[in-house]
Amino acid sequence: MEKGVGAEILTIGTELLLGQTIDTNSAYIGEQLAAAGIEVCWKSTIGDHEARIRTALRTALTRSEIVITTGGLGPTEDDLTCRAIAAELSRPLILDQTVLESIRRRFTERALVMSGNNERQAMIPEAATVLPNPHGTAPGFAIRLEDGRIVAAMPGVPSEMRPMLNEQVIPRLREAFGVKSRIRSRTLKACGITESALDETISDLTRLSRNPTIAVLAYPGEIHIRLTVKAESETEGDQLLDDLETKIRNRVGEYLFGRDEERLEEVVGRLLLDARATVAIAESCTGGLVCHRLTNLPGSSAFFMRGEIVYSNDAKERLLGVPHELIAEHGAVSRPVAVAMAVGMRQIAGTDLALGITGIAGPGGGTATKPVGLTYIALASDDGATSREYRFLGDRETNKLLASQEALDVLRRHLRSHRYAGQS
Amino acid sequence: MEKGVGAEILTIGTELLLGQTIDTNSAYIGEQLAAAGIEVCWKSTIGDHEARIRTALRTALTRSEIVITTGGLGPTEDDLTCRAIAAELSRPLILDQTVLESIRRRFTERALVMSGNNERQAMIPEAATVLPNPHGTAPGFAIRLEDGRIVAAMPGVPSEMRPMLNEQVIPRLREAFGVKSRIRSRTLKACGITESALDETISDLTRLSRNPTIAVLAYPGEIHIRLTVKAESETEGDQLLDDLETKIRNRVGEYLFGRDEERLEEVVGRLLLDARATVAIAESCTGGLVCHRLTNLPGSSAFFMRGEIVYSNDAKERLLGVPHELIAEHGAVSRPVAVAMAVGMRQIAGTDLALGITGIAGPGGGTATKPVGLTYIALASDDGATSREYRFLGDRETNKLLASQEALDVLRRHLRSHRYAGQS
Repeated sequence: MEKGVGAEILTIGTELLLGQTIDTNSAYIGEQLAAAGIEVCWKSTIGDHEARIRTALRTALTRSEIVITTGGLGPTEDDLTCRAIAAELSRPLILDQTVLESIRRRFTERALVMSGNNERQAMIPEAATVLPNPHGTAPGFAIRLEDGRIVAAMPGVPSEMRPMLNEQVIPRLREAFGVKSRIRSRTLKACGITESALDETISDLTRLSRNPTIAVLAYPGEIHIRLTVKAESETEGDQLLDDLETKIRNRVGEYLFGRDEERLEEVVGRLLLDARATVAIAESCTGGLVCHRLTNLPGSSAFFMRGEIVYSNDAKERLLGVPHELIAEHGAVSRPVAVAMAVGMRQIAGTDLALGITGIAGPGGGTATKPVGLTYIALASDDGATSREYRFLGDRETNKLLASQEALDVLRRHLRSHRYAGQS
Repeated sequence: MEKGVGAEILTIGTELLLGQTIDTNSAYIGEQLAAAGIEVCWKSTIGDHEARIRTALRTALTRSEIVITTGGLGPTEDDLTCRAIAAELSRPLILDQTVLESIRRRFTERALVMSGNNERQAMIPEAATVLPNPHGTAPGFAIRLEDGRIVAAMPGVPSEMRPMLNEQVIPRLREAFGVKSRIRSRTLKACGITESALDETISDLTRLSRNPTIAVLAYPGEIHIRLTVKAESETEGDQLLDDLETKIRNRVGEYLFGRDEERLEEVVGRLLLDARATVAIAESCTGGLVCHRLTNLPGSSAFFMRGEIVYSNDAKERLLGVPHELIAEHGAVSRPVAVAMAVGMRQIAGTDLALGITGIAGPGGGTATKPVGLTYIALASDDGATSREYRFLGDRETNKLLASQEALDVLRRHLRSHRYAGQS
């Protein structure tokens, strides 16, 4: 038996053993459980093989108080998790009418015919608590054994598993095992600065701070500063995190755009709403990615009016009124054209703000003077137009991502430094 | 004991359990071993904890002929793999002079001072074969037990582990166990059909086919049918795969859009190039995602002319010439408006094809008669316009993804069934 409450994760699926799918679920579960004060001591992956699933469960129950499985709850022949758990815990499978109904409902809503396979998903081990799955057909379930141990089974699809874990499984576990202490962590997200530059600016804090600890992680277009603290109470933990965050903000504040799950587009969307400002986007090299990211936000129609993906010069001229001579003289990928795109877009869309983005995403199209990755981003507002040159070094999709990131950051910085009608 | 040669992977490191690092090593190893004809039956992750590493190794040796570990070979205190293996197999650790020398060399080459810690990395279990690590300081090692089983330990850094696996470990294993056969696999990708419907259509094949085996995996908007075959020669394997693929195509051929790494947008892009056809996209609910996916393709400017992200009704009317009355009568999310968007887009862009996409991505904006997820996709071509209604049940981003998937599939189906100038 481990100190504290020990959990074991079993991820199930032959595709995980064959390496056809990378198991991101167990990392996510480990992270969430750790944050909830539950230690993951073992993690195993088993193929779609009933006997092996049973062996793994048996072994897990000899050493862990909590066993969490993912995968193998689907409707197909090779989904064996439910059967294996029921057999190993010698609990018969029973048809759960409520589950069957909710599966039926999903199919009728979609005007689809439900196949016999889907009924299998309504067979639940006796005396198990059903964990409803609002995001898919396969429900999860939790079984509390006589000795208090808990076995929880969840689907393998991350978008179905994650909310089930956070909203249903973890609260049950903390309650069942009376877990008090928490590991809290906070991620500060930065963009517009290199990892090493940021690292250097806060290296002394990173070295000296023990609780919270600091970890700097680099991702395409943004850097995460992860603060992790262990505390008995949330308030105590938050206080320690707040103090350290303040120190960091004093040094790199302008680069920090958000916290934790907050995405750059969400921050920009909120700033636009606060400012009651509207925006239109003219994209060339980013090919719609900036519009896509902004329209991922619920309610984005309140600030996002319009986007133009203008790949051809002709479209740049006819749609945005970019003068033919300008393109002829400077080329489509140039600062003047980016500016003309932004100004033209703002005029025809009648928005407060407009972006013009032109560049060479690659792999083709680069020259000695205009290499792949060269990108110009211009912002048009009632103060006129500003623009900046960038040189990205990634492949096509990375360059598109980096350009969309910078474009959103241009909006963020502008909105932070200007007052709009809506702002008090 | 498994049929054939069974391997077990042990990935070691507390950061893997805490989810701070996602374990990509075991997926890579599983894939490489499978391709080399060695079946991975178990995979476990253990923290930096000597007793648990020993337990995991003990368990592995009761059921697998090959045990491969990664991680925990570094110079620091919490690198315990070597010690744990040596203890569990009761072989003393012996200082290997050659290893010590090569580590020293690495440090002098880099003009670095070697710390005592690094010497620990030269301690190798007695009678183990050292696996040199040209890409790092920590060497790996392989131990052949009296009964023929093999335990191989490799570092956790992927750039060090991968070459060691492919150049040193796998050849040794194939030789030691006289493995002749290789495993080949092929993935057939389908869209426009539900997992259970597809599964039912081929369930007899799934059940009866043993070599190749069939696995059905569902992803948002597409389903993968994975065929895995074991064969002595590549040609034999391919023949078996071809035969099974033909059987599957005879039943669900129209839904299959590609193979292996092929993405739906790549297939559509290739069909557009072959047809020398051009396309323009008018997106409402997908907010630029379809344009983004098409412009992810290098050289997409050859067929992608233009995209309009028309969020407001005003934009739909002014830009695409959607009649005001049409929107007033049927609403912006309706089949007639989707058709008018496609037809209008095709006219102003002067392309061979144009898509019109309108829907309610959610979470807001739904009504009893027009629920969240309701989407209309229309295609305009020289034969006029076709359109279809969809009801997606995901969250906002999933609905956008599913709609973009269907939109691309509409293009794919049209291009496959029509002749264009370019086609011979």
